[in-house]
Amino acid sequence: MKDYIIHHEWKIIEEGFHPDLNRISESIFSIGNGKMGQRANFEEKYSGDSLRGSYIAGIYYPDKTRVGWWKNGYPEYFAKIINSANWIGINIIVNGEELDLAKANVISFRRELDMKQGILQRSFVAELKNGNRIEVFAERFVSIHDSEIGAIKYSVKALNFSGNLTIVSYIDGDVFNEDSNYDEKFWNERSKHIQGTEGCLEMETLKTGFRVCTGMTFTFYKNGELISFEPENFQKEKYIESKVQIPVENGDTVVIEKLTSTVTSLNHPDDELSVKAHEAIKRALLRGYNGMLEKHRNLWSNKWDSSDIIIEGDKAAQQGIRYCIFQLEQTYSGEDERLNIGPKGFTGEKYGGVTYWDTEAYCLPFYLSSAPVEVSKNLLLYRHKHLMKAINNAEKLGFKNGAALYPMVTINGEECHNEWEITFEEIHRNGAIAYAIYNYVNYTGDKEYLAPFGFEVLLAVSRYWSQRTNWSDAKNKYVILGVTGPNEYENNVNNNFHTNYLAVWTLKFTLEVIDFLKKEFPYLFEELVSKWKFSEIKETTRWKDIIANMYFPYDSNKGIFLQQDGFLDKEIIPASELSESEQPINQNWSWDRILRSAFIKQADTLQSMFWFENEFSEKELKKHFDFYEPITVHESSLSPCIHSVIAAKIGYHQKSYELYLRTSRLDLDDYNNDTEDGLHITSMGGTWMAVVMGFGGLRVKNNALEFNPFLPAKWKSYSFKINFRGRHLEIKIEAEKLTLSNHSNLPVDLKIWGKDLLLETNSTKTIQK
Amino acid sequence: MKDYIIHHEWKIIEEGFHPDLNRISESIFSIGNGKMGQRANFEEKYSGDSLRGSYIAGIYYPDKTRVGWWKNGYPEYFAKIINSANWIGINIIVNGEELDLAKANVISFRRELDMKQGILQRSFVAELKNGNRIEVFAERFVSIHDSEIGAIKYSVKALNFSGNLTIVSYIDGDVFNEDSNYDEKFWNERSKHIQGTEGCLEMETLKTGFRVCTGMTFTFYKNGELISFEPENFQKEKYIESKVQIPVENGDTVVIEKLTSTVTSLNHPDDELSVKAHEAIKRALLRGYNGMLEKHRNLWSNKWDSSDIIIEGDKAAQQGIRYCIFQLEQTYSGEDERLNIGPKGFTGEKYGGVTYWDTEAYCLPFYLSSAPVEVSKNLLLYRHKHLMKAINNAEKLGFKNGAALYPMVTINGEECHNEWEITFEEIHRNGAIAYAIYNYVNYTGDKEYLAPFGFEVLLAVSRYWSQRTNWSDAKNKYVILGVTGPNEYENNVNNNFHTNYLAVWTLKFTLEVIDFLKKEFPYLFEELVSKWKFSEIKETTRWKDIIANMYFPYDSNKGIFLQQDGFLDKEIIPASELSESEQPINQNWSWDRILRSAFIKQADTLQSMFWFENEFSEKELKKHFDFYEPITVHESSLSPCIHSVIAAKIGYHQKSYELYLRTSRLDLDDYNNDTEDGLHITSMGGTWMAVVMGFGGLRVKNNALEFNPFLPAKWKSYSFKINFRGRHLEIKIEAEKLTLSNHSNLPVDLKIWGKDLLLETNSTKTIQK
Repeated sequence: MKDYIIHHEWKIIEEGFHPDLNRISESIFSIGNGKMGQRANFEEKYSGDSLRGSYIAGIYYPDKTRVGWWKNGYPEYFAKIINSANWIGINIIVNGEELDLAKANVISFRRELDMKQGILQRSFVAELKNGNRIEVFAERFVSIHDSEIGAIKYSVKALNFSGNLTIVSYIDGDVFNEDSNYDEKFWNERSKHIQGTEGCLEMETLKTGFRVCTGMTFTFYKNGELISFEPENFQKEKYIESKVQIPVENGDTVVIEKLTSTVTSLNHPDDELSVKAHEAIKRALLRGYNGMLEKHRNLWSNKWDSSDIIIEGDKAAQQGIRYCIFQLEQTYSGEDERLNIGPKGFTGEKYGGVTYWDTEAYCLPFYLSSAPVEVSKNLLLYRHKHLMKAINNAEKLGFKNGAALYPMVTINGEECHNEWEITFEEIHRNGAIAYAIYNYVNYTGDKEYLAPFGFEVLLAVSRYWSQRTNWSDAKNKYVILGVTGPNEYENNVNNNFHTNYLAVWTLKFTLEVIDFLKKEFPYLFEELVSKWKFSEIKETTRWKDIIANMYFPYDSNKGIFLQQDGFLDKEIIPASELSESEQPINQNWSWDRILRSAFIKQADTLQSMFWFENEFSEKELKKHFDFYEPITVHESSLSPCIHSVIAAKIGYHQKSYELYLRTSRLDLDDYNNDTEDGLHITSMGGTWMAVVMGFGGLRVKNNALEFNPFLPAKWKSYSFKINFRGRHLEIKIEAEKLTLSNHSNLPVDLKIWGKDLLLETNSTKTIQK
Repeated sequence: MKDYIIHHEWKIIEEGFHPDLNRISESIFSIGNGKMGQRANFEEKYSGDSLRGSYIAGIYYPDKTRVGWWKNGYPEYFAKIINSANWIGINIIVNGEELDLAKANVISFRRELDMKQGILQRSFVAELKNGNRIEVFAERFVSIHDSEIGAIKYSVKALNFSGNLTIVSYIDGDVFNEDSNYDEKFWNERSKHIQGTEGCLEMETLKTGFRVCTGMTFTFYKNGELISFEPENFQKEKYIESKVQIPVENGDTVVIEKLTSTVTSLNHPDDELSVKAHEAIKRALLRGYNGMLEKHRNLWSNKWDSSDIIIEGDKAAQQGIRYCIFQLEQTYSGEDERLNIGPKGFTGEKYGGVTYWDTEAYCLPFYLSSAPVEVSKNLLLYRHKHLMKAINNAEKLGFKNGAALYPMVTINGEECHNEWEITFEEIHRNGAIAYAIYNYVNYTGDKEYLAPFGFEVLLAVSRYWSQRTNWSDAKNKYVILGVTGPNEYENNVNNNFHTNYLAVWTLKFTLEVIDFLKKEFPYLFEELVSKWKFSEIKETTRWKDIIANMYFPYDSNKGIFLQQDGFLDKEIIPASELSESEQPINQNWSWDRILRSAFIKQADTLQSMFWFENEFSEKELKKHFDFYEPITVHESSLSPCIHSVIAAKIGYHQKSYELYLRTSRLDLDDYNNDTEDGLHITSMGGTWMAVVMGFGGLRVKNNALEFNPFLPAKWKSYSFKINFRGRHLEIKIEAEKLTLSNHSNLPVDLKIWGKDLLLETNSTKTIQK
């Protein structure tokens, strides 16, 4: 837990120079545009502690996995989105001495992330060993208007000297990853070129053969005047630079505007990359730094218009929730169905930037409500695109007939994770992917997505569940053996309630979708039957039998479903009785002790109750919450949010707020001492859920929006914005009243605290409590 | 499965040159003396495929472990007994061309391992590229009389040429291991010395700092006459050699006798190693090659006198069982309680030469019956010596108050294994170590071992069981959650019958031992109570409660104890229904599929029934065997033996014999295609059990020997030798009769087929069937 970030509604601010916190700040002040991301490394040379990171969506390396003892079916590699060419490099030499904040006397230092505009700024005054004092102002952004462009404005003012200022702008492809299994480097040089004020460096990843060409150009200003110059260019293996020497008088200010382009073989033919990098640079130059910045700002303004949450009366909470929204918007922009969301986005190396079920379970609701419908649809298409690989994955594990098991961790559809208890057994992810289809269709009303995309995935997942289920003579029921639920503090359990429930739910939903297709798309359905060799009667007969006869562990004394078979053989002790020194238990207890304890890492039985709350009475929800939440240690950042939403639903408002607090500023306050590894991007989707679905009580039922809002006691008011089927709504909750605005030309039916309400086009209604 | 080893009662014979089988033969023809072992690598240079291996007991390297995702409590290293200096090296140069069987024309080739004498012999005729043809006879042994000595006699005859024969005798310390995690080399040179005909090389292991000095000397004979010569000596980093050039006429035979010494810092002060290596060489020289060989042969003769098994009417079986005995005798000689038995002995790198529960469960019975009592006692003392480390290991996992968890894999008492489901959960090993104490005392009658050694281990293990057990409100019984039984095709199960049974048994036995100590060693017991802070009443009250209220999974319909909770939720399919292409399932099925199947790797519930057969009726044993054996895939080489013994016990003689066949020639016929990695040494103890305890029905009950022998249909007769409390017995089983001989000066009470019989001193009795 740290507390050095200054609270501010729209900005993230670090005041003063903190070399010991630098890796944390490098994560927190990260910027990105959904296609690339950049940690807040310094432009100029820095010999202090730093994790350099420049990541490009979809550009990965298959890092050979390490395991103890190989298991049949393990993947050969763990895909990692890797550190790419350093495009921000600008070295400053003052009268022969190179600026390095680790060696200079740093007189003042400030870092600011302007979330409203999507800009990172840094200013400092430093005195070099030679006594020369400079004031630096650095500003940069990665354009969301033209996602191949990065732009930097770097200004140096001579405060107490005259002489020479040398500025070296470079691109360095000789980068490495800290978190690689065999300490390899992942890039080869393909070509490079530098002439006059423009250069580019083309690199290629080993094994995967992705090519990335990084171009740069720059302009100089002295005291506001454009100046011309003749750069001294230099190149070496994997590196290009342009050096410019500028004479300065005391008080002079020199500004370099560096524009860069990053083009990749994902989007362009291999042999056109240097041309494309050049074209991108030209596009940027045409607008110039300021023109690019204006376009960028405008688009950020649009994003905030449809996604902002305003909290009055709690500046820390305001900053926290905007930070979550800002980072989610930076990480996934949704135009490209080949891309997805890594648990750390583009802000660090951990988890390799690859995709988990976090996307479907924790991020999708944010994008559904805050972004155009295509964004969520592309998240779903990402999985549809990987269907054949998921089928192959299931085949590797012994399944047949088009059954699919989606990978636990993936970048291109292939499984990357290699712990059997997770890779092979944490199969509820397959259900999460099915549920996301329901969630998407339910929210957007886009039922056509089911034909064929949704159906194809659902069929394959249902086939998997059908085969993964076996009949137990002992129980006279169907069972699902040997699984790991969302609560990864249990491994290889039998009849995990959540997994069994999801399996049955998927089968039911698939049957509904089949009925829908038969009615609405009969010809297409016939084609799909033939394409997928779907023996409808035979297969659905078994599905129906499973639906009717699935076993769910239940304790009739307590009246609760059990997380798994045998759960009540454990000693049930509330997490509050754990001593401080034991927590988090995953750092202080041995794994076997964790496994045989009842302590729960994150929502498991309650994950089903969250998704399928309509299928349980409020009394049942309460009973399960009362049993499970107290033994939950919330050692996943994805845990508190789900509990917060349920707590809100069952009227435990204070509890809901407390749970929300556990992740609302997770990274800004470095709550878990791991922000230096990168930000908890997917958890931010959970924090959004806690506010909008928890406090706001947003649900979509029968094609209508519902809200059951309450106001956390500490807040004066909060409001949030929602996109819903072409409507742009704003809901403001205050102590005495609720204000609803419809900023669209479509009326909308709402249910507020159970009461129907029609909100006319472009209108506002106020409801007194 | 291979079939190239020629059947012979006393010898292992390979006829013809098989470069493709060379690694297998290198394992099969391994020799050792309990202190060191040597794979059957060629003395002369060989550029073909080979796994060079020279291993010294107790000399290991802590190889950094590889894992996927680190778990709290994992060990930092996996100890490996490493390949040490090559002491057998003798290169032959014929008229300038170096002998290399991979390049020469091999006209004949024969390898023989003489088990009666403990000698490896090799003879071949080879024609070099230069047309020179030589006949070579090579013989070597590692002395069991003086365990620091290795001896080689290498003879070369000129068959069709005259000219120069150059012989290079060397020691090469620059060796590597194939099975190391990070491809490191493990040895540094300390010193070297070579002068005249004697040299030595002292090496030191990295990290562990073990020092090994290898000395050599040699003598030459030409046509039977000792010849004098002036060697040309040479040394380089980690290497010494002596080169001798001898003029030969066609038909001449030159013999080099190379004597080597291997002395280590385990047995001598660091700074005296080169002196000790020199002294050992002197000792050997004094006797000469032939003198050393005679001593060696005599001791082998003694070993066979007390351990031989003779099978008439089945040469393959005869060779197979003698091979098992031979290798067990070579692997562990029992004078040093710091040493133990690795699953592959000194015959390869796999499993790192470290100790598993195999020793207690599968090897101890052989040594109890075949070797002096000190040998078995030292195997037990090995564990007692590691008691504090086992207590530390348990503390790391959260146990307190002197509870001990012995490691799954160890060389020095520290855990080396790092899969949580085994390391942390396969805790039945703790019971196996307790059971070995019972087994030892029951067999030898040496009850004094309990005071204090046995008691101290039992107390610590009982404390572990007591803490590892928890009360289940749901079952109203004690349970043991989250374990892996001997059947490693289940992980993290609850209430594994074998584990629960062993836990209760250990507690009961410890209570008995406490009563014994209180009665026989009251003062010592008081000291132990104080030393171990043993709260007798408090602790034993809980033990008694656990004994009285332990839960055992049981199915009342079938009348059988279940391997674990929920076992009958699985689909029970006999292993005979598995297709060939699916077997072994551990190479063809994914791990999750194996786990949720009912297929059993090795005896689990039946392991308890084997150890505690007296506590079950024959009907119960049959019922459990009939249920479990058909679903057992026997994919551990340790599986068939236990089943064979039980089958014999319940009168399934044909089944018992079939099961015995599955491991009786496991390595000689390379049954599992893995003999190239080394021999299945501990499985050989199991094969011995199948014959002596299975077919012979050997048991010790109430201080008396019992036999319930039967004769496998294919055999004419078999006989085995048994040491029992100072008696040397021989039992021969023929179709019509049983012959019992007592070759000792003590009478012995026996029970044969349930009938009492007194066998007088030095007498023989025959019982007609």
